[in-house]
Amino acid sequence: MTKERLYLYDTTLRDGQQTQGVQFSTDEKKQIALALDDLGVDFIEGGWPGANPTDSAFFDERPETRATFTAFGMTKRAGISAENDDVLAAVLNAGTPSVCLVGKSHDFHVEKALGISLAENTENIAKSMAHIVAQGREAMFDAEHFFDGYKSNPGYAIEAVKAAYDSGARWVVLCDTNGGAMPAEVHAATKAVIEAGIPGTHLGIHTHNDCELAIANSLAAIDAGARQVQGTLNGLGERCGNANLTTLIPVLMLKEPYASLYDTQVTKEGLKGLTRVSRMLDDILNRIPEKQAAFVGASAFAHKAGLHASAILKDPTTYEHVDPQSVGNERIIPMSNQAGQSNLIKRLADAGISVEKGDPALARILNRIKDKEAQGYSFDTAQASFELLAREELGSLPTFFEVKRYKVTVERRKNKYNQMVSLSEAVVVVKIGGEKKLSVSESMDEGGSDRGPVNALSKALGKDLGPYQAVIDDLKLVDFKVRITQGGTEAVTRVIIDSEDSNGRRWSTVGVSPNIVDASFEALLDAINWKLVHDGATAV
Amino acid sequence: MTKERLYLYDTTLRDGQQTQGVQFSTDEKKQIALALDDLGVDFIEGGWPGANPTDSAFFDERPETRATFTAFGMTKRAGISAENDDVLAAVLNAGTPSVCLVGKSHDFHVEKALGISLAENTENIAKSMAHIVAQGREAMFDAEHFFDGYKSNPGYAIEAVKAAYDSGARWVVLCDTNGGAMPAEVHAATKAVIEAGIPGTHLGIHTHNDCELAIANSLAAIDAGARQVQGTLNGLGERCGNANLTTLIPVLMLKEPYASLYDTQVTKEGLKGLTRVSRMLDDILNRIPEKQAAFVGASAFAHKAGLHASAILKDPTTYEHVDPQSVGNERIIPMSNQAGQSNLIKRLADAGISVEKGDPALARILNRIKDKEAQGYSFDTAQASFELLAREELGSLPTFFEVKRYKVTVERRKNKYNQMVSLSEAVVVVKIGGEKKLSVSESMDEGGSDRGPVNALSKALGKDLGPYQAVIDDLKLVDFKVRITQGGTEAVTRVIIDSEDSNGRRWSTVGVSPNIVDASFEALLDAINWKLVHDGATAV
Repeated sequence: MTKERLYLYDTTLRDGQQTQGVQFSTDEKKQIALALDDLGVDFIEGGWPGANPTDSAFFDERPETRATFTAFGMTKRAGISAENDDVLAAVLNAGTPSVCLVGKSHDFHVEKALGISLAENTENIAKSMAHIVAQGREAMFDAEHFFDGYKSNPGYAIEAVKAAYDSGARWVVLCDTNGGAMPAEVHAATKAVIEAGIPGTHLGIHTHNDCELAIANSLAAIDAGARQVQGTLNGLGERCGNANLTTLIPVLMLKEPYASLYDTQVTKEGLKGLTRVSRMLDDILNRIPEKQAAFVGASAFAHKAGLHASAILKDPTTYEHVDPQSVGNERIIPMSNQAGQSNLIKRLADAGISVEKGDPALARILNRIKDKEAQGYSFDTAQASFELLAREELGSLPTFFEVKRYKVTVERRKNKYNQMVSLSEAVVVVKIGGEKKLSVSESMDEGGSDRGPVNALSKALGKDLGPYQAVIDDLKLVDFKVRITQGGTEAVTRVIIDSEDSNGRRWSTVGVSPNIVDASFEALLDAINWKLVHDGATAV
Repeated sequence: MTKERLYLYDTTLRDGQQTQGVQFSTDEKKQIALALDDLGVDFIEGGWPGANPTDSAFFDERPETRATFTAFGMTKRAGISAENDDVLAAVLNAGTPSVCLVGKSHDFHVEKALGISLAENTENIAKSMAHIVAQGREAMFDAEHFFDGYKSNPGYAIEAVKAAYDSGARWVVLCDTNGGAMPAEVHAATKAVIEAGIPGTHLGIHTHNDCELAIANSLAAIDAGARQVQGTLNGLGERCGNANLTTLIPVLMLKEPYASLYDTQVTKEGLKGLTRVSRMLDDILNRIPEKQAAFVGASAFAHKAGLHASAILKDPTTYEHVDPQSVGNERIIPMSNQAGQSNLIKRLADAGISVEKGDPALARILNRIKDKEAQGYSFDTAQASFELLAREELGSLPTFFEVKRYKVTVERRKNKYNQMVSLSEAVVVVKIGGEKKLSVSESMDEGGSDRGPVNALSKALGKDLGPYQAVIDDLKLVDFKVRITQGGTEAVTRVIIDSEDSNGRRWSTVGVSPNIVDASFEALLDAINWKLVHDGATAV
């Protein structure tokens, strides 16, 4: 059976930038555009040239891509010709092969927001599309609020999109701008547009996630015949975001009936890069990746329930609807008090530790985990601390060094400019193979700002570990999480530290204490010990 | 037109607890159950009694609710009678009016995971349901993997659920356990079950969000006739989470055709508490609320695009599909202080401070709040710190005392019994009316356990405030929350402190710094100053 072609249109760089707190630099836009191109999208909407200086700069420097670059703008204003509209001219001046203009298709918006007649609006759409085509570009029309418009005045909504199509628009994109449409409405309206004479091969869908229905609405339009679908990486976008391409792409490629019906330009190999692309974007935005994100989240294939975990060990398809590797993600069977021995054996095997079923160490490990969880520890995420605990019970954890004592001071006082400033200092004393080493560090970062006592302590601890120093020199703390596990005055603190090294390995460790400095120190020690174990260091 | 009754079934406390990193205490479960009851759900699934000590403890202490409490478990095992199955007995022993048992309906799972015959499985379902009914309880059957089962062997999937219904199950719940079903499949399979003889008024739907389709799949089943829908607050749950009740409830109540067709027990007033309930859960989990969450997210009604914001000022319905107040949320229009000012006057009045509209201090207060929020402060809960900031701008905050400097040490070393112990000491120097006072304290509690540096600091600060001492003597810290507001190595800490006095007053203050001790100190100072203001202390 020949598959039909379905086109993927990315608007991360334009609509995605409407997310609260998101503003890409030109370099970041380039990096994202190249990643999208590698992934295999068909169109990259780069921004609105003229409306935003960064967007204009980006179009000047845009990278070479296989994907078609698209500039975004709006249909010409009333009372002015398309040729003389300077806003439209700025969009065309970006020189992209494709140009997408948003315009009205909802009578209420034409009359309320624009204050012009319906006929004038139709003419603005038609003239704008014809102008783009006359310039030798591919023309697209984003029909804003199409589904609300179709409910309010179906005749006019159809007239507006027909005007775009009849004037040469290659694509007419039906937009659920406020994210309020239901899937059945999207399906019915899309069908009506096709029946009115715009073929599905010329129809696109653009949805928002205000009702958590952006994916469903996109699929509803595709089911009805639309053959272009718009979205953003990680579902960035105004308010609750746009349709999430990071979900939509694997659904279209891995789930039936879509996998058998449609072809996109994303290959199976490209799909394996999906998790990486998603994390790269979070990295650029300095966001902690959403754990529960579909397909690409760290928890997307994490099986916590004991019944699930034991079935997964027999056959992963029992509780997984797709193979995690197909999207570049991985399966996690976390430790928790709901898990049993089989779960534990699997978890140990993942850490490279092989233990036979029935080994008495297994019960000891489970008991220690339960005790520690009762104290406030959590090993779901802190896999590295779990592994060290297990190695200890199994007698396979060398004592690399011993911490004899440490001392941290935090001082806040006036400096010579009469400003209140804080400074922390830490002294750590370790014993390595009979030799005592004393290290000191303060809490200033490179910019001279105080980063607090944990920072000072971490630097002092990592300063001189003698024969191990070469191994831990590339260890970097990348995240630090604190949680009070018991409220009130008896507050107990849980610290989770994520570390990374130059091989790109990333691991998490945990510490718990009523004293936040102690809790942090415990997690830091685990982070170092885990790396020493995994880099094959031998105890001196 | 009479509406049909649609039942809401919450499983936050059971399936929601399968979220990686989530483990509720008994007290937290009580708090959540009461909030769910206030909201108006019909069923509260409290956990699996017997499988988990916390769950068992919770059932013993469960609060009185209007909603029906449900215990979760699994159908009886093969080769044993329902009466003699100890796992099932533990579930029934929780004494709930309703009992929900999960069982297999997918032939592959019966044969692969259970290793029994299809007929044996059918009997296990039937006997289990009959046993619950015989005990005078309401019986429910969760048909695990129903949609996969229906695709693989429709005859057997229907046989399994029919066995439950025919044996007295009040509800048969069709579960998309691995979250892989598409809306059209859910719709067709649900219809088939109804055609096979289980009325929709006895059918429930339980979905997961692995394809971001949990809401759409729930709606598809309702469209087909199911009249019970299951989900969790904030979409907690295994892997990518369950259907999000925080989205589903407003969709069912505010969006057509659902609003006109169905009635739930959630009232319009109850719905206005939705955002608050969502934030409360995040607070319990010490999570940063998801900004882009549908309906309840801080960005859900934030209009960043210039075109949108100006249209919103003309008429909010131009870019909002529902009124933010209907779910207790609010509109955000960046760069527009107009809405901000009347809001602020209201909040100041709540704190007993009356300010006229147009007072220039209002703009100054708003600007300072914005600046501070950008640094990581949050005044949503820290009402007392907000009030102090406003009083400062309004010139109505006396300077009671000045902190000249402080110093805290944390030391960890061996004691005389060769055990590692920690001890913190704090010295605080304050100036009160020209007089310098130096106080010192250590971090031991009455039992001789170290409570950490913040505890030492708090005790030193509250030890001798001269003329104010009588006022603050009854001040008690009752809760301490820490949150990292910026991930990665640049971690910034936000501390929220709840204080209480002998009059039963309770107030919250906030501090922010990369240095957790400084952040805590700032919140402590605010706590003391707020009490001095409210007890009418006069500056010396």
